[in-house]
Amino acid sequence: MRISELSAASGVPIPTIKYYLREGMLPAGEQISATRARYGEDHLRRLRLIRALLEVGRLSIASIGKVMSAIDDENLNLHHVLGTAQYAIAPAVEPHASGEEWARARAEADDMIADLGWQVDPGAPARDELAQAVLTLGRLGMPADKEALRPYADAALRLVTEHEIGTIPLDGSREAAVEAMVLGTVVHGRVLDVMRRLAHESVSAHVFTTS
Amino acid sequence: MRISELSAASGVPIPTIKYYLREGMLPAGEQISATRARYGEDHLRRLRLIRALLEVGRLSIASIGKVMSAIDDENLNLHHVLGTAQYAIAPAVEPHASGEEWARARAEADDMIADLGWQVDPGAPARDELAQAVLTLGRLGMPADKEALRPYADAALRLVTEHEIGTIPLDGSREAAVEAMVLGTVVHGRVLDVMRRLAHESVSAHVFTTS
Repeated sequence: MRISELSAASGVPIPTIKYYLREGMLPAGEQISATRARYGEDHLRRLRLIRALLEVGRLSIASIGKVMSAIDDENLNLHHVLGTAQYAIAPAVEPHASGEEWARARAEADDMIADLGWQVDPGAPARDELAQAVLTLGRLGMPADKEALRPYADAALRLVTEHEIGTIPLDGSREAAVEAMVLGTVVHGRVLDVMRRLAHESVSAHVFTTS
Repeated sequence: MRISELSAASGVPIPTIKYYLREGMLPAGEQISATRARYGEDHLRRLRLIRALLEVGRLSIASIGKVMSAIDDENLNLHHVLGTAQYAIAPAVEPHASGEEWARARAEADDMIADLGWQVDPGAPARDELAQAVLTLGRLGMPADKEALRPYADAALRLVTEHEIGTIPLDGSREAAVEAMVLGTVVHGRVLDVMRRLAHESVSAHVFTTS
């Protein structure tokens, strides 16, 4: 298809498509004359992923570029590609704590992950997020040790192994796998959060109406 | 204790305490002379809760006032008091959809909750949040029916019944119960989210390193 057709099929305006081409986020089309190029299903799929990363993952153009490079690098396995996207969508953590207090919280988080036997890269940003939560709980006077957070680890692991990992399509393109991972992480994260609050209300209705 | 001691014990500045007193968020102290009043443990506990609602729950002063009124109204049972606080911390949903599309998503959400047999008030804001998630999933071309979201409902209900409901202190004040509920909802919500992403990475490391 021509660039105008690609634009119509994807809903992405032509100037935006040209910008993605210049930035290398979208591979060049097949040149069929000096001024015209032809685009295919690959381009459509890639545009769909870029939009998902922008709109749902809220990634910057620079971060999207990194995810695309990982997808295009055939030396990287799917775990690495998914990890690149996952790290890119992780919220940035800015420690509001002294060096020592922060180091203690981070050590506690690392220790928790080691205890769970989980295989998580030492540089994974979610380690900092866990440290931040440990710090916040401690400051609020709430328990923040391994035992207190274990039910959350167990619930998460069960959901991922019994359900979520099976929703990543493995028979399609890497784009499709990354898209499913990013959308699933963000939107299903919201679903889990709201289901939890609905369950709070329902269980409270059974337990606390006489208190 | 005097207002200066209450300020020192709570970390809340005197002018702020006076503001809370004027707004009726903090009950008046016991008047011991024309210009002096005495404050007790109840005031300290109440100030602690106000800070938690402000800093962790990000509630407005008006919303905190509503939560305090519910705590002080002895005709309301604990479920109602907790619900008032829970509704106040729910993120506002502004439907980005036409009336008809939104009505369909909301009906789907209501139907899901009915199917689960959960006891949730028809006016609970989390119903709108679930509708919003259903809408987003549908627009992204992802499954959003009961069956697709059931694993999230199951994981949430299990976590709440097996663990979270037991963390609400029932032998103390209503302030303590509300504080535990609000902090638990917000901070443990973050813990669950980060544990889920850590579990994604760990399970992906086992499953996808060969793909």
